[in-house]
Amino acid sequence: MPYSSREIRLASRPQGEPQPSNFELAEVDVPDPAEGEIAVRTTFMSVDPYMRGRMNEKSYAQVFEIGKPLFGGAVGEVVASGAEGFAPGDVVVHQQGWREYATMPANHARKVPAGGVPESAYLGVLGMTGLTAYVGLLDIAGLKDGDVVFVSGAAGAVGSLAGQIAKLKGHTVIGSAGSAEKVAHLVDDLGFDHAFNYNDGPVGKQLRAAAPDGIDVYFDNVGGEHLEAAIFSLHPFGRVALCGAISGYNAKELEPGPRNLHLCVGNRLTLRGFIISDHQDRFGDFAREVGAWVASGDVKFRETIVDGGIEAAPQAFMDLLRGANVGKMLVRFG
Amino acid sequence: MPYSSREIRLASRPQGEPQPSNFELAEVDVPDPAEGEIAVRTTFMSVDPYMRGRMNEKSYAQVFEIGKPLFGGAVGEVVASGAEGFAPGDVVVHQQGWREYATMPANHARKVPAGGVPESAYLGVLGMTGLTAYVGLLDIAGLKDGDVVFVSGAAGAVGSLAGQIAKLKGHTVIGSAGSAEKVAHLVDDLGFDHAFNYNDGPVGKQLRAAAPDGIDVYFDNVGGEHLEAAIFSLHPFGRVALCGAISGYNAKELEPGPRNLHLCVGNRLTLRGFIISDHQDRFGDFAREVGAWVASGDVKFRETIVDGGIEAAPQAFMDLLRGANVGKMLVRFG
Repeated sequence: MPYSSREIRLASRPQGEPQPSNFELAEVDVPDPAEGEIAVRTTFMSVDPYMRGRMNEKSYAQVFEIGKPLFGGAVGEVVASGAEGFAPGDVVVHQQGWREYATMPANHARKVPAGGVPESAYLGVLGMTGLTAYVGLLDIAGLKDGDVVFVSGAAGAVGSLAGQIAKLKGHTVIGSAGSAEKVAHLVDDLGFDHAFNYNDGPVGKQLRAAAPDGIDVYFDNVGGEHLEAAIFSLHPFGRVALCGAISGYNAKELEPGPRNLHLCVGNRLTLRGFIISDHQDRFGDFAREVGAWVASGDVKFRETIVDGGIEAAPQAFMDLLRGANVGKMLVRFG
Repeated sequence: MPYSSREIRLASRPQGEPQPSNFELAEVDVPDPAEGEIAVRTTFMSVDPYMRGRMNEKSYAQVFEIGKPLFGGAVGEVVASGAEGFAPGDVVVHQQGWREYATMPANHARKVPAGGVPESAYLGVLGMTGLTAYVGLLDIAGLKDGDVVFVSGAAGAVGSLAGQIAKLKGHTVIGSAGSAEKVAHLVDDLGFDHAFNYNDGPVGKQLRAAAPDGIDVYFDNVGGEHLEAAIFSLHPFGRVALCGAISGYNAKELEPGPRNLHLCVGNRLTLRGFIISDHQDRFGDFAREVGAWVASGDVKFRETIVDGGIEAAPQAFMDLLRGANVGKMLVRFG
């Protein structure tokens, strides 16, 4: 028996900030799994800043198409299986988010290990989000002994893990976030050495106060003013992992870039962009190292969980882009 | 007997474009060489864009001090020697330019091999200028088979060699320069596949016309609009060697940077600054490879030689910053 499933489709491409009218709710029948397939009921779905890019006509990743369902990370329970090794009740991670049920080839899903970690963690700290922090810090920025590390958007899902990995490896870590509450969380809960609220004043001034002797690594989730401030503070041979630029995602016009890129020459700075799908080969190292820290409680993670299932997903995504989350933003399905 | 020598000193720090009043001519007595020293009469001195940065109060390199002589690359003839292995008549390269005579420790000078190459070449194509092109292209941009290469300021001393090295290694090469004559030189004399005059229209549009399928490597001597255009045209995993940003050297205020740095994330671009003093270990490889091409005539180089000696040097430097040169800009001493 097929499953009746509701899904969110892209109704129109947002100009600037997404509006409710850019989304539409539709109902479809999801077929029973054929051989090699599974049917999965969504329990949590992820909303991520990168999805904003996919709503544009052009993006580095596969774009969302008008009239078609959105997609993205989700976790769910197998409800029917035509695939060896998968049984009803298994918990899997997959990429068919934004819908209540999905039928997919079993090799498009990954079973989650049974254990003490809540299943939602596999969408965040132990999923692609966590891998992004790990690869960005260790491989792209090439973290070295003694580096002073600055992370922007540090209360976000990627930033908070990047900062904690750096702390666990013995570094001095400075974070920026958008509210006093988030700043307190970074320092009091996550052990950041310094943190500041980027709404309190110029980023450059606050960064210089937090790191008067400068920084070596900048993990950039924000772009814009943050990147310029970091370039001013970077020591010779400093490195920037360009992970995202949420400050400009909703911009209708391109905004001017940092005015100080000429400093990259004399200070021999490297700025390097990356996307996590190129780095799946690091998943094993990541899962071992960060998985142990999560299990031991050394890495803390927060989730901002929005209840309400599929109908609540568009608003959760719009709120995410306005910075309403602390840590990973998820939508829980009933 | 000491040598009476005239030298150019920094009279005041330029604000924006250097003016004649920023320089002063002075006369000094240069002592006879002590043991281990040599006295050298300048025959050619180099004027280079990087010197503009040293005239500011702060620079990545040692700054010029007010009331003190400027310095920089020069070639000259040994006139007296207290050092083993150096005899009057030897030709040496050294860093005590901007003066008619200089006495220095012999290990601050390098003897130039006797041979078919004019001595001025050791200030340009076979000197630090040439090494800059070689290291920037091969090591910093990491030139790989099949890369399409864009060089800005391509009629300059560094750019023209970078483009020729890329051509000799089999790449498609596009260059930008600031006049129709320079553009013709790039295509007709140096074998560039395409070249354009950046004064003829928007850089981005001209670059897309020259490289409709995009580029892989950008050798940046200019910054500003050129860098933004290159970022728009770079393929995934493209690389930028940030060598200089002459477009902003005389700017009194910092100018906005490229509006499209966010593309570095999705396209996994790397932007890397460098200065040549970090890469002296590559001099041997460079001298062998490029020296052979210069000797065989495969690498062509132009020099813009200004006669008039020490008195002509400040104007030559100011003209260089306005792009009056084709290839290496030198001042010849009588």
